[in-house]
Amino acid sequence: MAFHNLQERVPVTVEITKRIKRLQQGLQAREAGAALIMEKVDLFYFSGTMQHAYLFVPAEGTPLLMVKRDEVRARRESPLDRIVRVGGLKDLPVLINDEFGRIPRSLGLELDVLPVNQYEFLQSLFPGVPFFDAWPVIREVRKIKSAHELAVMVRAGQVAAQVYRSIPGLLIPGRTEMDVAAGMTSLAMSLGQQNMIRARGFNNEMHTWHVVSGRCGAEIGGLDAPFAGCGLSPAFPAGSSFKPIVEGEAVLVDFGICLDGYQVDQTRMFAIGSPPAQIRDAYQALQEIEALLLERVKPGAVCEDFYHFGLDLAAGLGYRENFLGVDGYRIKFIGHGIGLEIGELPFLAPGHRYVLEPGMTFALELKMVFPEHGAVGFENTILVTETGWEKLTAADERFICV
Amino acid sequence: MAFHNLQERVPVTVEITKRIKRLQQGLQAREAGAALIMEKVDLFYFSGTMQHAYLFVPAEGTPLLMVKRDEVRARRESPLDRIVRVGGLKDLPVLINDEFGRIPRSLGLELDVLPVNQYEFLQSLFPGVPFFDAWPVIREVRKIKSAHELAVMVRAGQVAAQVYRSIPGLLIPGRTEMDVAAGMTSLAMSLGQQNMIRARGFNNEMHTWHVVSGRCGAEIGGLDAPFAGCGLSPAFPAGSSFKPIVEGEAVLVDFGICLDGYQVDQTRMFAIGSPPAQIRDAYQALQEIEALLLERVKPGAVCEDFYHFGLDLAAGLGYRENFLGVDGYRIKFIGHGIGLEIGELPFLAPGHRYVLEPGMTFALELKMVFPEHGAVGFENTILVTETGWEKLTAADERFICV
Repeated sequence: MAFHNLQERVPVTVEITKRIKRLQQGLQAREAGAALIMEKVDLFYFSGTMQHAYLFVPAEGTPLLMVKRDEVRARRESPLDRIVRVGGLKDLPVLINDEFGRIPRSLGLELDVLPVNQYEFLQSLFPGVPFFDAWPVIREVRKIKSAHELAVMVRAGQVAAQVYRSIPGLLIPGRTEMDVAAGMTSLAMSLGQQNMIRARGFNNEMHTWHVVSGRCGAEIGGLDAPFAGCGLSPAFPAGSSFKPIVEGEAVLVDFGICLDGYQVDQTRMFAIGSPPAQIRDAYQALQEIEALLLERVKPGAVCEDFYHFGLDLAAGLGYRENFLGVDGYRIKFIGHGIGLEIGELPFLAPGHRYVLEPGMTFALELKMVFPEHGAVGFENTILVTETGWEKLTAADERFICV
Repeated sequence: MAFHNLQERVPVTVEITKRIKRLQQGLQAREAGAALIMEKVDLFYFSGTMQHAYLFVPAEGTPLLMVKRDEVRARRESPLDRIVRVGGLKDLPVLINDEFGRIPRSLGLELDVLPVNQYEFLQSLFPGVPFFDAWPVIREVRKIKSAHELAVMVRAGQVAAQVYRSIPGLLIPGRTEMDVAAGMTSLAMSLGQQNMIRARGFNNEMHTWHVVSGRCGAEIGGLDAPFAGCGLSPAFPAGSSFKPIVEGEAVLVDFGICLDGYQVDQTRMFAIGSPPAQIRDAYQALQEIEALLLERVKPGAVCEDFYHFGLDLAAGLGYRENFLGVDGYRIKFIGHGIGLEIGELPFLAPGHRYVLEPGMTFALELKMVFPEHGAVGFENTILVTETGWEKLTAADERFICV
């Protein structure tokens, strides 16, 4: 029994087959024996299911999905042929040896997220087998989105646009940032929003409801972002707060949408009444900067160049001290890959000297901070095409005043 | 600028001082040199701030909070005296050596959650310093809640009760599980719900909106729970789905609330019209089982005994095959610690032979699964007192039919 449309939503056999093939090519290129996929998002990507399971992918041959719980559901969700039930990690060596006739000569693990205790347990299970970090191989596979994945992201963009259309009706003087975020969240959930943004990495907790008004936009905080917002408390020091939204303030809405696992990011500006002129001018500057950056988005463009070009453009428009954060707190990227997780390739950031390729998707995060008036942001999720780019986010781009 | 009440919400100096002291006693007991706290929830617990920072706690002496971002906010949120800004992990050895005159003789890290790559980087930074798992020490400190923490949990329980009172108004035939979850989420956010449940550990993603109706309650899934619900898609295979709620079905609502970092868990049953008699009877049985288990809740009671006693009680009432899940998928705990994270001590589970102590808080998760009619649940968050127990969750305990 499942109330979602499996035909449409589960990656079909051909999709999974291609992904596994690319992973195996990556393993072969580094003369590795196998990879053991444990992180749930990678697991979903390569198997089609996110049940509690371990996916063993040999460099050559048929992968084995070992399901701890629940095997029935995993079989329904995954197109893989070779699925067995397993009691736990401890049973893997015997099972792998039984199925493949030997233990792999080396084993790739997701060392960017796998905790030390589990790693050491795996070392005790596979004595003498060298482990290596499989994440660099995995992320190379995941960085190019298929037509199937893009179709889901387009739908996520449509839902996001619908949710953004509700914002003017939610902006009532005296309501708090949280009230607006709550209204958006409710609508988004009814439309299929997972209500959870997945971000790769330790401590990388994410949430979807950045409704930030007035000087809360100048609150910096621990996030790797130009500003964090006030948040609810020191235990949740980011995003919306109980600050009431008042007339004449800038209201920034950066509300991620996640549909069927795939995420899009989008930022727009709003105000009750008329926002400060400084903020309105800055928003227009960000739109100009986006247009000039997008002119360069095409296969072959070097990722880190966008960061430097963006900084130059902002400086030329008089925003050197505000763009991507205030001095001392400026962030080191202008765009990040997005898809199943935030933190995928590509990063438009210094040191990222690889080039854009067709099928890459990234959020172009154009933000400024003004200590007096708060934050300004303009952000879209961009697909790199064969000849240029397309926007996957489609909310009205005007500065909307109600 | 902060729109929450810091006086009330930030643990005051005396609170943090006591926690640090207990951690240091734990370090001394194992003759360790120091602990380096990196996980954001532990960091909040021991420093009062959740900014991007590292907390170095020597076995004796004053701890050092090294803040990567944002130092200004960390100083405002944390009552610690010794706070410095740091560029990143790489700067820790020099900084610690400067501040303490030496590198610690051993260093505790949160090895249950710390990823391998960061561990190996720390090994390169502190060559020759033995590392050990600090989590067993930390969780011993965190397992006893202070009066301050309990006051926050009581408020979370009050918010939870208010959110549960909205459920009858949301139960309209034809609305989906997600619609009901969305309505609850919106209200909860307006009341200060973080809209995120924190659960300790790798892959332990949590969400708050378990509204599960009819046979979706018999959907098992990868969660370490008697059932998972249908969820939205294979990329989010747990919790509420787009299944419409119809008259005569059992509707289980397990909606966690997180306020100022502290969580409470609570499950109640609802129906439009009249639920199946089997479900109603089972709910009554769960209430009897809770009452009999609570009679034994007091300091000194052995945690694992509750699991076995609960199974015996359920069997005696004729529910051996349903209690805590169906055969082959029965879960191995009847209660779990709760506070800043799900996954704290105590666990009421086989092998957990330690005893209850005053100040412990746990969710008593009484659930049954019926393949034909779905899930039944009755759950409260319980505080162990000097003489017995108190409930921190207060929603109406009747089976509510609208």
